Amino acid sequence: MKVLLRRRGWHVKRPTMADIARRAGVSKVAVSYALNDQPGVSEGTRASIKAIAEELGWRPNSAARALSGARAQAVGLVVRRPARTLGVEQFFMEFVSGIEGVLSGRSYALMLQMVETHQQETAVHRRWWGEGRVDGVFLVDLHSADTRVHAVEELGLPAVVVGPPGTSGSLPSVWSDDGESVREIVRYLAALGHRRVARVAGPVELAHTAERDAAMLDVCREAGLPEPAVVHTDYTGDEGARAARRLLIGPDRPTAMVFDNDIMAVAALSVAQELRLDVPADLSIVAWDESPLTRVVRPALSAVSRDIPAYGARAAEALLASVAGERVADVREGPARLVPRGSTSPPRTGTG
Amino acid sequence: MKVLLRRRGWHVKRPTMADIARRAGVSKVAVSYALNDQPGVSEGTRASIKAIAEELGWRPNSAARALSGARAQAVGLVVRRPARTLGVEQFFMEFVSGIEGVLSGRSYALMLQMVETHQQETAVHRRWWGEGRVDGVFLVDLHSADTRVHAVEELGLPAVVVGPPGTSGSLPSVWSDDGESVREIVRYLAALGHRRVARVAGPVELAHTAERDAAMLDVCREAGLPEPAVVHTDYTGDEGARAARRLLIGPDRPTAMVFDNDIMAVAALSVAQELRLDVPADLSIVAWDESPLTRVVRPALSAVSRDIPAYGARAAEALLASVAGERVADVREGPARLVPRGSTSPPRTGTG
Repeated sequence: MKVLLRRRGWHVKRPTMADIARRAGVSKVAVSYALNDQPGVSEGTRASIKAIAEELGWRPNSAARALSGARAQAVGLVVRRPARTLGVEQFFMEFVSGIEGVLSGRSYALMLQMVETHQQETAVHRRWWGEGRVDGVFLVDLHSADTRVHAVEELGLPAVVVGPPGTSGSLPSVWSDDGESVREIVRYLAALGHRRVARVAGPVELAHTAERDAAMLDVCREAGLPEPAVVHTDYTGDEGARAARRLLIGPDRPTAMVFDNDIMAVAALSVAQELRLDVPADLSIVAWDESPLTRVVRPALSAVSRDIPAYGARAAEALLASVAGERVADVREGPARLVPRGSTSPPRTGTG
Repeated sequence: MKVLLRRRGWHVKRPTMADIARRAGVSKVAVSYALNDQPGVSEGTRASIKAIAEELGWRPNSAARALSGARAQAVGLVVRRPARTLGVEQFFMEFVSGIEGVLSGRSYALMLQMVETHQQETAVHRRWWGEGRVDGVFLVDLHSADTRVHAVEELGLPAVVVGPPGTSGSLPSVWSDDGESVREIVRYLAALGHRRVARVAGPVELAHTAERDAAMLDVCREAGLPEPAVVHTDYTGDEGARAARRLLIGPDRPTAMVFDNDIMAVAALSVAQELRLDVPADLSIVAWDESPLTRVVRPALSAVSRDIPAYGARAAEALLASVAGERVADVREGPARLVPRGSTSPPRTGTG
């Protein structure tokens, strides 16, 4: 029996009054009486219920809440930080402010934890859920093969995936259609007359990087452009600068580059200056996402802009609905908008 | 009696078993028996203890923890976001990662909430503390006259002020000596031959802005420089650019400017380009804090650098000590280091 329970993942699920009642073969009311030392059950039954509660790892806190029908009134967000990157942080802060807007209206709090690995993230989820600290969690920065989704499903912990539906298993996903934005950028650059377009991307293991990569290949083929150069980085300005420099001094220099964040695009602007290349005449630059940074440099950077707080708000709404036991459909955000500024133009004649 | 309790702030303090025992004139053990429906007290005493518990706003959750000696095992950080500013966010993320490093080693979680006013922040503190969600909080971005310190003292909520000791009332403060860093910057610029030095500062109501302002006046006087121009902004690149532009087209153009964050310093670099001024020959620029951004622009910016994660770690250690009931002394971090890069040099002869 114990083995069977384990295989079903019960050893990690927060045990409820119902679980204890099922095991003991008594009613939930009887369990409630027994665990609260209230009259209504015999001493023998009380003792055996308490023994089962202990065996299942039942904890007073979560039981108290289960009894009163109260929830933790908190949701959790674990962030993995492989590198300190400005672009990601800008996204993160705006995303969290959107989440908070929804949470505070419902008197929900946000638990935040930073970790270094997905294993650590899953351990945090298990602890939070076991201790009744959260009613649900957000999963962000999904990998193409991500162990966290399955772990959360096994825990029975309500969760929302912020990422493409292909990565979310049985969980609801809130996502923006990055492929559509890539297509808009490349069609715009092609319309300006660019043919050699390169992409300086984020980490290859992120699901949305892969999604953008695939869309880029696709739309270049469709537009009759040669296969684009794609370089993966860790999102830092240093790696962005290195990628841009290598592309600019190589053969078949691209006349346009698309960057997966703001800091790498700014770094590329500096590299162009070093190499005495004019932006945009010799090199057009598109940044993703738009940020205060893309606006203060000269020329200001053409960029892809999203309403990131609204994205966070949508994710929070989906999670709270999921916590409330509703069936939540995947939420697809509208694609980001391209905002052309001074860093894009037709390529200088003779270099295109 | 009720009025007296209110004036003492009892209406907001999380009531403990000891409070109930005091009011009921019984022992804590008797309160524990009564509230847990355990034998050991008469039914009359049980009823009167429960009535007092209800009157004081005692809640089962916090009582369960008080009984078991367990804590919330979480601390809280409320962030007020008057404007979305990159510089502040960079600081914030590094600071939080330092906090988390200490917390996770002690199995503590961080509750995060964003608000718009100090009143809202205090309401969050009151709710968190009343519901037993946190054992302590960080207070950041202190104002010169800050209502939050007194409110936290009244609640009896353990707290650490991240800011100068002058702002922290009876609470321990963790702070870095910004005045000393200002003195280092100005002495360095004066040694290069600058005489007209300006400061583009953050919001005037922040205590550390005032501290830097005062130090700037002081050291300019000491170094025999004319009184510096000081412009206060909201930390955004837009306001930083406007301040720099106004200073550069005005009479007595400064030959050096010190900025209170990275994004304003980068914006000033763009303004200098617009005005065909060479950085550093026509204008030296110093940014505070150093960030990935200050390194990717050309010229790379001379900047003031701090170990921000270490600062966060120190704050977390002080808070956990305070939660544990220890007397915590103020912690003064070493001053930030000046890292000279390409954006500072002696002024062009004839303009200095």
